[in-house]
Amino acid sequence: MMRKIVVGIMGPGDGASDQERTWATALGRGVALAGWVLLSGGRNVGVMEAANQGARAAGGLTVGILPDADGERLSEAVDIAIFTDMGNARNNINVLSSDVVVSCGMGLGTASEIVLAIKAGKSVILLSNQEQHWQFFQGLAPGKIQRASAPDQVIALIQAMLV
Amino acid sequence: MMRKIVVGIMGPGDGASDQERTWATALGRGVALAGWVLLSGGRNVGVMEAANQGARAAGGLTVGILPDADGERLSEAVDIAIFTDMGNARNNINVLSSDVVVSCGMGLGTASEIVLAIKAGKSVILLSNQEQHWQFFQGLAPGKIQRASAPDQVIALIQAMLV
Amino acid sequence: MMRKIVVGIMGPGDGASDQERTWATALGRGVALAGWVLLSGGRNVGVMEAANQGARAAGGLTVGILPDADGERLSEAVDIAIFTDMGNARNNINVLSSDVVVSCGMGLGTASEIVLAIKAGKSVILLSNQEQHWQFFQGLAPGKIQRASAPDQVIALIQAMLV
Amino acid sequence: MMRKIVVGIMGPGDGASDQERTWATALGRGVALAGWVLLSGGRNVGVMEAANQGARAAGGLTVGILPDADGERLSEAVDIAIFTDMGNARNNINVLSSDVVVSCGMGLGTASEIVLAIKAGKSVILLSNQEQHWQFFQGLAPGKIQRASAPDQVIALIQAMLV
Repeated sequence: MMRKIVVGIMGPGDGASDQERTWATALGRGVALAGWVLLSGGRNVGVMEAANQGARAAGGLTVGILPDADGERLSEAVDIAIFTDMGNARNNINVLSSDVVVSCGMGLGTASEIVLAIKAGKSVILLSNQEQHWQFFQGLAPGKIQRASAPDQVIALIQAMLV
Repeated sequence: MMRKIVVGIMGPGDGASDQERTWATALGRGVALAGWVLLSGGRNVGVMEAANQGARAAGGLTVGILPDADGERLSEAVDIAIFTDMGNARNNINVLSSDVVVSCGMGLGTASEIVLAIKAGKSVILLSNQEQHWQFFQGLAPGKIQRASAPDQVIALIQAMLV
Repeated sequence: MMRKIVVGIMGPGDGASDQERTWATALGRGVALAGWVLLSGGRNVGVMEAANQGARAAGGLTVGILPDADGERLSEAVDIAIFTDMGNARNNINVLSSDVVVSCGMGLGTASEIVLAIKAGKSVILLSNQEQHWQFFQGLAPGKIQRASAPDQVIALIQAMLV
Repeated sequence: MMRKIVVGIMGPGDGASDQERTWATALGRGVALAGWVLLSGGRNVGVMEAANQGARAAGGLTVGILPDADGERLSEAVDIAIFTDMGNARNNINVLSSDVVVSCGMGLGTASEIVLAIKAGKSVILLSNQEQHWQFFQGLAPGKIQRASAPDQVIALIQAMLV
């Protein structure tokens, strides 16, 4: 038996849009159905909460890397909680611990995770319909990221990487 | 469904004694049979390796919190690897992420985990037959730790906490 | 006496351009002449090295927050070295420890520092002549950053903040 | 010019005894008079506060590595504050950033700093009159620490190391 494959889903917390949460639920479900472990920032809001709920409903295993020292803001759909007490410095742990990093929407924390993931040499998929975001990251690291416009396309891209 | 119960087994790496490794294997097995998640420092040496192998052989789920950015020193018996790239500062994450912290033998890193765990208000069990170690920690934090002299006693103490 | 004012200069390391290094030297000099402490990532390359040399030559005090556990990659122009052994997770410490955060040019690590600084509520100044970069961060956090096109303009903006 | 010599003074916060605070003030003064930089955990209580006040009164330069993201608990006698937002995980940064680590009294956090410092290969001086503490650390790492029973003896030991 080998270490499980871990897919990190990163996205906004309190500021997440309806579309970002809907995408996140579908991504969580897709990750779980593929048999991968879902990793997220673990909080009970936004993309984190939606992705964990999606994975939980599909019978998946979920890992949350919390910025906090305790579970006050922990999603109830996280199976294994890692409490870092490191605030946003934990974002680097999120990406280092993921075999593939998916950004689901955009925010300040999400942007930090994308650039740290590229810097760490991780496979990064940007789920976004905003041309400006794609251009920015593509400009910083040409050819280092992939782009998707729907959750099932993200899952297909990951499947293709793992062949 | 609730968050899984996580038991952290802390102990020496390269410097582990035969007894410490034997204890660790038994602890890993006991944690797995009880249905708890085993958390450790995740490296492929000493107490970390032995505890993970013990849990793996008994069908348990294992989480390793690595000091490194990659899996070069990762135990093959770790299911979920958290790569912190934080060196020994990750010891604080080990204890914050464990519901119960068990020290299996003693070393410099292990001692740091015991005191950080007590400081974080965690339940701490010292598996040790060295009176001096017990006296030291008991002196620093009277009444805050429990002591055991064999792995099955550790498991029984944890069972009693969780009733 | 009060805590000293700390200005963080963030920018590319190995990949820094000539212009970025020239800007960094001028920024370091300007920070030192104003009597502020210069904070940087502390390495002996790129914007970090140039900013520290600029401040050192002007008699300033320089603090470097290293990703490493030791001084192998430390700029010789750093007076006080903080060794984090945390890799890129130290970027969050860089911005939290700066009263004002200045990005001098752009790179993956620099981008992470800008977004973490905005998230932490810090005053952020973008020294850049790339419209795309400005648009990206301005889109993520409208009204939260200031822009400059030359080092002396950066120093003037900081002076204005501190009045 | 070279990087400044940094002496880390570690000791209890809220739980510090009168003797520990008196020792800390003398140590801070001694470090400052020797021309070294004082590094501490930076908080406004116990050994941290006393050491910084001692150094400040003697005209020294003081660096505080805070567990927090902001200055709410910062000693007013800290010149340069490094905000880690990492809680007790910052203890590893304290010791990595010190050329010599001095424990002034004992507590849970202090004990973590002593063992992490030994692990990092730092020169460690234990200022203590408790035989049990000395025996414990000496047992963990024979020959790796030095012992002192008064602040001026600590300063003399450091002077001897730097010759």
